[in-house]
Amino acid sequence: MAFKFEVIDKSNETGARLGRIHTPHGCIETPAFIPVGTQATVKSLTPEELCRLDVQIMLANTYHLYLRPGHDVIGKLGGLHRFMHWDRPILTDSGGYQVFSLSKLREISDRGVTFQSHIDGSRHLLTPEKVIEIQETLGSDIMMCLDECTPYPATHTESQKSLELSIDWARRCKESLTPEGSALFGIVQGGMFENLRAYGVEALTSIGFDGYALGGLSVGEPKEAMLDVAAFTLPLLPDPLPRYVMGVGAPEDLVELVSLGTDMFDCVMPTRNARNGQLFVSTGTLNICNAQYRDDELPVEAGCLCYTCRHYSRAYLRHLFMAKELLAYRLNTIHNIYSFMRLMREMREAIHERQFGQFRRNFHAQRA
Amino acid sequence: MAFKFEVIDKSNETGARLGRIHTPHGCIETPAFIPVGTQATVKSLTPEELCRLDVQIMLANTYHLYLRPGHDVIGKLGGLHRFMHWDRPILTDSGGYQVFSLSKLREISDRGVTFQSHIDGSRHLLTPEKVIEIQETLGSDIMMCLDECTPYPATHTESQKSLELSIDWARRCKESLTPEGSALFGIVQGGMFENLRAYGVEALTSIGFDGYALGGLSVGEPKEAMLDVAAFTLPLLPDPLPRYVMGVGAPEDLVELVSLGTDMFDCVMPTRNARNGQLFVSTGTLNICNAQYRDDELPVEAGCLCYTCRHYSRAYLRHLFMAKELLAYRLNTIHNIYSFMRLMREMREAIHERQFGQFRRNFHAQRA
Repeated sequence: MAFKFEVIDKSNETGARLGRIHTPHGCIETPAFIPVGTQATVKSLTPEELCRLDVQIMLANTYHLYLRPGHDVIGKLGGLHRFMHWDRPILTDSGGYQVFSLSKLREISDRGVTFQSHIDGSRHLLTPEKVIEIQETLGSDIMMCLDECTPYPATHTESQKSLELSIDWARRCKESLTPEGSALFGIVQGGMFENLRAYGVEALTSIGFDGYALGGLSVGEPKEAMLDVAAFTLPLLPDPLPRYVMGVGAPEDLVELVSLGTDMFDCVMPTRNARNGQLFVSTGTLNICNAQYRDDELPVEAGCLCYTCRHYSRAYLRHLFMAKELLAYRLNTIHNIYSFMRLMREMREAIHERQFGQFRRNFHAQRA
Repeated sequence: MAFKFEVIDKSNETGARLGRIHTPHGCIETPAFIPVGTQATVKSLTPEELCRLDVQIMLANTYHLYLRPGHDVIGKLGGLHRFMHWDRPILTDSGGYQVFSLSKLREISDRGVTFQSHIDGSRHLLTPEKVIEIQETLGSDIMMCLDECTPYPATHTESQKSLELSIDWARRCKESLTPEGSALFGIVQGGMFENLRAYGVEALTSIGFDGYALGGLSVGEPKEAMLDVAAFTLPLLPDPLPRYVMGVGAPEDLVELVSLGTDMFDCVMPTRNARNGQLFVSTGTLNICNAQYRDDELPVEAGCLCYTCRHYSRAYLRHLFMAKELLAYRLNTIHNIYSFMRLMREMREAIHERQFGQFRRNFHAQRA
């Protein structure tokens, strides 16, 4: 089935909406949280475990897979789905963010961006056309345009220049799509400036994409600034298409951004924090290395139905973590992804039952 | 059910035998290979995965668990089985080997051995009585006597002194058992000297244990010396009791030692080598980091039914390993344990069908 988005229900009190994205690899219920599988694996977990955790779509990083093992290798092996044994939808980012955050010696020219690999120092040129070619070779269900992630802070002039570049690259991405290509999303930049964000939306929607993302958020700005930009920009995006806030975020952010009408999120927080011993519970977070858990026979969260909470005590998880055992990262990751997936499910149910406003108030009250 | 061993079938050409060990946590078919779960986890795997791999018993390290998290913690949490969510049999070593290989500042006295923790430098006294107390607190199904693992090389005098110490400690271990205690195995030391090994067997069998292990093997001696000592010593052990060769070994060693009448083995080889990228196949081993596997779409071993081989190519496993992804260690470990478990199953079937001699010849021919 080709790409299609449908809005099923809307919250009456807020901008939250319940939807469904159809892709060649199946359906995604929205609002959706997308776990990050940078190098063609959600760190420590198998695809079967992700399915059991109700993960409906994962994200893979174009930059990383282009450098290692190489998109040619993955293409030869039958595409990313087959390569990593995952038959549900995959969203691939464009690599732009990683070029600007991980690599060395970045030089922007008319053609694209030249950079040095963070792995072996080799030089590469990434162009909008190349980025589409890579994502098509990977067999992505949802592809992203090459953009320049405007850093924070940035002046109006810097933000505008960066935005213009991203718009130009977005146009070239769209033009280089093959006819049978997958869905392609545009990324709205514009820094912290409302007029630039509005201009970005206008320019990208006039090119026309299958969905729109907000980029350049969660890059160091205060949380209020992030929410202000999102609150201003999200309503400008076309209502019938999915809206994706990239790189966000904490459970509190997810609830706020859903209430502003966001349909999709991705973030390393549940997986990365798991590997650092931080576990998400309904009242906030818990650090498993804390000495108070040394002989605590309770699960991470009472009543949690995840595999980890059903079978293991905090004491065991603390022991594994202190002993740097591989199973620690895995059990922690299972709990955190479950926790994020449960939050998204609860939000979808609340929207469906026209209870999202109440859900949001309860959510914040529980953490106050 | 209390501890019991029964011999079910014997090979007619060799000393190999098929048996069954009954323990309070269920049955173990022998010859059995025991995967090592040093710190209350077989690195990277869950107990459910071990069960799917047909693992019937695992080994945990007394030294490690005594130091971290402490046997008191595990006892308070309901014992090791409950702590780590494993309900099949557990064998615990005595900690002797680790005291002599990992810790610092070892001082042997009449009471026992004083050592410094390899984790935090704290000082501890391990006595035969203490070692039994720890293993009983853990709730082990098969406990091992405290012994001194004689290093290689060692002179006759050194080996004899070390053997006498181990015999004295074994006697004290036996004496300190609580009446309702689990099975306790003695460990035969004696270095590379037949008369010492024979004396060790005599001394230990006159004390009387539930099973006997050969210790001090696989400590750097040539493979022929290991097999010579085993070939000499194993027939001296009481026929109706299980015979356990500790710390061995490679598939070739397992086949030879089974043919000499060994019933049990433990070794880190399948798990540790998996984490180093070495995978066991029926013709030998394969190093997954080898560049030839970069775009190899074959599984690790054609026809292998393990989870890894059913779903992943060598190219994907190589990619995960090169990218240092946690899933690499896990998928490699699954394959290697499966491979060891399959070898043990094939040997048991061959003994049952009176075909073990033929099996052994085929096994070696395949690797020639």
